[in-house]
Amino acid sequence: MMNPTLTTLLNHRSIRHFTDEKLTAEEVTTLVDAAQHTPTSTFSQQYSIISVTDPQKLATLGNITGHHWLEDAGHFFLFLADQYRNSQLITATPRAIANLHSTDKFLAGIFDASIAVEAMVVAGESLGLGSTIMGSVLNDAPQLIDLFHLPELTFPVFGLAVGHPAEEPEQKPRMPQSLMHFTNDYQPLVADDPTLAAYNQVITDYYQSRGKQQREETFSHHIATELARDPQQRAKLNQALEYQGFLQK
Amino acid sequence: MMNPTLTTLLNHRSIRHFTDEKLTAEEVTTLVDAAQHTPTSTFSQQYSIISVTDPQKLATLGNITGHHWLEDAGHFFLFLADQYRNSQLITATPRAIANLHSTDKFLAGIFDASIAVEAMVVAGESLGLGSTIMGSVLNDAPQLIDLFHLPELTFPVFGLAVGHPAEEPEQKPRMPQSLMHFTNDYQPLVADDPTLAAYNQVITDYYQSRGKQQREETFSHHIATELARDPQQRAKLNQALEYQGFLQK
Repeated sequence: MMNPTLTTLLNHRSIRHFTDEKLTAEEVTTLVDAAQHTPTSTFSQQYSIISVTDPQKLATLGNITGHHWLEDAGHFFLFLADQYRNSQLITATPRAIANLHSTDKFLAGIFDASIAVEAMVVAGESLGLGSTIMGSVLNDAPQLIDLFHLPELTFPVFGLAVGHPAEEPEQKPRMPQSLMHFTNDYQPLVADDPTLAAYNQVITDYYQSRGKQQREETFSHHIATELARDPQQRAKLNQALEYQGFLQK
Repeated sequence: MMNPTLTTLLNHRSIRHFTDEKLTAEEVTTLVDAAQHTPTSTFSQQYSIISVTDPQKLATLGNITGHHWLEDAGHFFLFLADQYRNSQLITATPRAIANLHSTDKFLAGIFDASIAVEAMVVAGESLGLGSTIMGSVLNDAPQLIDLFHLPELTFPVFGLAVGHPAEEPEQKPRMPQSLMHFTNDYQPLVADDPTLAAYNQVITDYYQSRGKQQREETFSHHIATELARDPQQRAKLNQALEYQGFLQK
């Protein structure tokens, strides 16, 4: 059971090193077109995309994310959840305003932006382009709001650095389906599950095969490291969500 | 600029009527495999999928969503944001616990689930299957939490009804790129933008061409109708998010 699209999907790797070749205007339009043809919650098209070409803005994004390599990508897209455009289309009644500021409509914008970014990743890969979705733009949402003049009811969700690949990384092995695909009921992990132990070993082998002996880690250890980060690091995220008028229930 | 993957992406339609043919076990595994190979925030794989095959549970989902046709789909997947599995992998320190309950990690789970569901849509379409992403499962999140025994730090995000298409709907026209794709700065709508007026007419024509004269509506009118819904309808969403331990900043 294989076809070119499945091959593309199953071969996904994030690409962080690119050649000097920039995307053509036609490629950019095609990628946005692919993003636009995704499903959109209640057909409300509640997301927007900003192409960032200004070198100073790219440098700021490099600082915010800590990933200066994005400045050398073939193109950089910033995806936004966007209920502002739709707020401009309507006569604001109290009920409509309450809806626009709700958690429900915030999530609808997040869903739209997330689904659209994946379509762009896949479309790019089908054209021989590589990319990395960059959630690290959320390290400083308030600065992004200033930098891109984001109005209320919009919110930055992801960056997407796209370009012609200058690396061919190994694929990080995903966990066995039995650990994340269940039937009819949620299945918590079982203590000492040999499937988990085997997967932890797969991750150790993956890092060792890359010659990064300093990362002799398991999946469990990786998660522990992620969750040991200072939660204050993203404290601005909540401030920014409130500032933009979201999550008002 | 075209290839089989782009053709698949650009031809997307949501499918709501299916033949009686169920998905094979191999198809289900392949779709989950495609979902798994998507980018995942901080490589944390913070989502899970439940295949719903129990007719009673499908009937309950039909009631919750108001879309009883999902009971006749070839397969039904429920996508979850899932930080619970990762919480099981670690020794819970105060910092790790604060992180697990943060808005940041809630959104990471939502991102993972949303990106994964789009990959499954595309994989299915490449195999000749149709699908509809069903955000309407959020009409009653508390009931889903009971029905599927969802532990804390998990949350239902989407249903995905998949099957062999028994309809060939027209594609809903998306808005012109100039209204949603900007360069270096956000661009609010401009009053009396002829591009918007033209798009509103495209939407009117779309509904009229489908013979649904009762929906002589524009995009603006569609949005106004959506936002006129009673926001209390989704009030349970916030209760359920708090109940599951999310959004604790």
